[in-house]
Amino acid sequence: MKKEPSILRYKHLGVLTQYANVVFLKNDSHVCISEGFTALTRIRVSTKNTSIVASLNVVTSNILLPDEIGLSDTAAEKLSISEGDTLSVSHLETINSLDHLRSKIYNHTLDYNAYQEIINDVVKGDYSNIHLSAFITACAGDRMDINEIADLTKAMIVSGVQLKWNKEIVMDKHCIGGLPGNRTTPLIVAIITAFGLTMPKTSSRAITSSAGTADTMEVLTDVSLSPEQIKKVVEKEGGCFVWGDAARLSPADDILIKIEKALDIDSEGQLIASVLSKKAAAGSTHVIIDMPIGETAKVRNRKKAEQLKTHIEVVGKEVGLNTKVIITDGSQPVGNGIGPVLEAIDVLSILRREPNAPFDLRERALLLAGALLELSGKVAAGDGVKTANDLLESGKAYTKFKAICMAQGRFTEPIIAPFFHEVHSENNGTLIRIDNRKIAKLAKLSGAPEFKAAGILLHVHLGNTIRKGQLLYTIYTQAEGELKYALDYLKMHTDIMTII
Amino acid sequence: MKKEPSILRYKHLGVLTQYANVVFLKNDSHVCISEGFTALTRIRVSTKNTSIVASLNVVTSNILLPDEIGLSDTAAEKLSISEGDTLSVSHLETINSLDHLRSKIYNHTLDYNAYQEIINDVVKGDYSNIHLSAFITACAGDRMDINEIADLTKAMIVSGVQLKWNKEIVMDKHCIGGLPGNRTTPLIVAIITAFGLTMPKTSSRAITSSAGTADTMEVLTDVSLSPEQIKKVVEKEGGCFVWGDAARLSPADDILIKIEKALDIDSEGQLIASVLSKKAAAGSTHVIIDMPIGETAKVRNRKKAEQLKTHIEVVGKEVGLNTKVIITDGSQPVGNGIGPVLEAIDVLSILRREPNAPFDLRERALLLAGALLELSGKVAAGDGVKTANDLLESGKAYTKFKAICMAQGRFTEPIIAPFFHEVHSENNGTLIRIDNRKIAKLAKLSGAPEFKAAGILLHVHLGNTIRKGQLLYTIYTQAEGELKYALDYLKMHTDIMTII
Repeated sequence: MKKEPSILRYKHLGVLTQYANVVFLKNDSHVCISEGFTALTRIRVSTKNTSIVASLNVVTSNILLPDEIGLSDTAAEKLSISEGDTLSVSHLETINSLDHLRSKIYNHTLDYNAYQEIINDVVKGDYSNIHLSAFITACAGDRMDINEIADLTKAMIVSGVQLKWNKEIVMDKHCIGGLPGNRTTPLIVAIITAFGLTMPKTSSRAITSSAGTADTMEVLTDVSLSPEQIKKVVEKEGGCFVWGDAARLSPADDILIKIEKALDIDSEGQLIASVLSKKAAAGSTHVIIDMPIGETAKVRNRKKAEQLKTHIEVVGKEVGLNTKVIITDGSQPVGNGIGPVLEAIDVLSILRREPNAPFDLRERALLLAGALLELSGKVAAGDGVKTANDLLESGKAYTKFKAICMAQGRFTEPIIAPFFHEVHSENNGTLIRIDNRKIAKLAKLSGAPEFKAAGILLHVHLGNTIRKGQLLYTIYTQAEGELKYALDYLKMHTDIMTII
Repeated sequence: MKKEPSILRYKHLGVLTQYANVVFLKNDSHVCISEGFTALTRIRVSTKNTSIVASLNVVTSNILLPDEIGLSDTAAEKLSISEGDTLSVSHLETINSLDHLRSKIYNHTLDYNAYQEIINDVVKGDYSNIHLSAFITACAGDRMDINEIADLTKAMIVSGVQLKWNKEIVMDKHCIGGLPGNRTTPLIVAIITAFGLTMPKTSSRAITSSAGTADTMEVLTDVSLSPEQIKKVVEKEGGCFVWGDAARLSPADDILIKIEKALDIDSEGQLIASVLSKKAAAGSTHVIIDMPIGETAKVRNRKKAEQLKTHIEVVGKEVGLNTKVIITDGSQPVGNGIGPVLEAIDVLSILRREPNAPFDLRERALLLAGALLELSGKVAAGDGVKTANDLLESGKAYTKFKAICMAQGRFTEPIIAPFFHEVHSENNGTLIRIDNRKIAKLAKLSGAPEFKAAGILLHVHLGNTIRKGQLLYTIYTQAEGELKYALDYLKMHTDIMTII
């Protein structure tokens, strides 16, 4: 039963696979034969200090020698290795939490320990896409009760870094997505920190939308900061706008979000756990949640909204957060731009008090900033919006915004995309409906958020009187191929805007 | 908006990825830049005649030139191309059936058209593992009603080849797995065809078990036959034992089964659709289904069994099959061998009337063959088992078995594995319990069914008096590494057999 360890030399193959760990081994290598490894086997690849789980691609050509091992670039990066370093490989030990996963697939209720074991294995990278997708699906469609959502949230909080601020009050906000262009966060952070309160804001990238706050802010400044860097920025300026994943807050969430994105779903349990685990791990104490409702927004009716509001506030309390959900209008996009660069331009125009700044986005930001100021107890009930407005109009919010950007590493002006296509009205009438989902889909097909400058610029809003030939919106793209793709969609969907 | 087609030369990289289609493109290639392709984008790869969908791996090293394209071997095989051939790539058009998938994730009931659209896209290869896993999970845990199961079954039937036999009666059987070693099918086919009835048997490979009938029969003969080859074999001998996938019967099933295997689940809806779609597509008219129940079998209690029996018989009727479910004892493995080669040895020993042939497997095969003979109406009620026994004892079944094997391409004697480990009893007593799941798991860890000779050979059965040191079972493996893996499991699970 003696067994030699399988030692292999790392050869750089230069293969990019996004987040997927792939390992390449020669078909006639000692390990493939002795360990019985075949294609797509999930195996453990280890250095002396660390290890990852990767899916095997078996190589039959001469791009590898039998004693060499190749890795996707992501995998090599996680192991911090370079050409010629030695690695060992072994069978993947049994993943015990898969018993819990199967139990959930079969509709059983899981307890805190089960969720913690699952989340730990997810964060370790032991779950394949098949396992992750099954977990997301088994938790979707109201298949988690409120206790399970709280347990999942708690498991996600402890799965990564937890920030501490030594402040009595730490402010936060979140928007339950679904409304294109609704980029209030950068404005709220600028107002709240200009007021003097602490607001260390961590945001996600887009899940199913064309941009998340992290995608938009990355246009203007660096958002991938380490916990130490975040600490420094917040100590200096009282706030930040960073990407939660880089901070390693609730890292399970960032893995699960990629699967939700591939499925284009965002289920209640995962949504609540995602939002609140990030807030709690970020050390927040007071949180305002913007929940737009509308026929084509993520939350479609008041009944659903009230249920979600209750669940969020209950789970918030369970994990120690003072949470208030504000239900807002979700009937049309907010602001003019949809896509990271175009939204960044909207944000700057409001902070700079430019005359053509989008009025609706400005008003929404003031409403939420006002509510947050009142929730803190530092501003009297009823005075929130006025206080927020003063900070914006005096230029104090803009000064603070630029200061935070510089503390995060840079302040960059947004640059518009090279390719565009204008869409004009084919008739006279009134704009009575904008399909949020279709306009967001069009922005995604144009390349957002992967290509930051891609997206849609709206020139009209609900209720506007439109004349035939009037410019309705412009599609921006980074590459010609993407433009064709967006135009194909446009041809098949003529009801993005309804003018009668 | 003019757009050149992206033409690339195929370079053979020799990368095995099992069933996953992977395409390799250079990062600085014209297509990656102009189309905006990034790692893991799912793209369409086309020859003049056909196309597949593949996941993109972006290459930054010199294993590819910018105008070259690499493919996993599976993908190249599907496109029937060789080095130097030209290929074009394009964006994947929107997969419309994903709207139905999302609807099912959110617990809505789907109709026949929705299932048909999903199944068509699955068969085309448009679904990624993430989509497939979500579909399997959304349909698991009693989340399909009986009409949905019938609709899914019908959609799966028409998704591939449908065989016609020009016979009034076409016999078939199936076992709802979960019982290691229960290899009655080859014996029943031999008996039924020796009687003179038609039985063109298509079988699956293992889903969650250590061997399926197709895995076992492949030890003895070729099982990957085309529909034309199957037709010839059946015309000549009246029956066959082939792998359903190679025959392109219900091809969706073979894709979905791989995902179920990765998740180690087998849900009711998918199980029924899987079994009955294969039977109907194979042109069967009369089907016996063996359903073992036992504490550690797939079906654990009589209530579950009765429900599943009803659902199968109802859906069977819906799709035009005369189906009878027979509930059998599932308290322990059937036969001595567990794993393809070891089970093939059991089958041969019964056909050859060897004195040490496993009595329990022989009896089970006669029970089911007898029931099938009676279901056909050609043998009087009560005479089935006797008729079956006569065909076995006369040697007619063995003669027919060898004839079918030869018609399928070969008859090969099984060869035992090179590595083994014997497990002995640590005490005196009576064998009162065998854990089917754990013994099957042990057989899988030993390498079955991927390595055909791997598996477990039982030397004892329930109720046997055991003395300390007595040989209980032998673990066979093809590679030393697999043996170590099985032994690790054994060390952690001492309750595979209970002797008191």
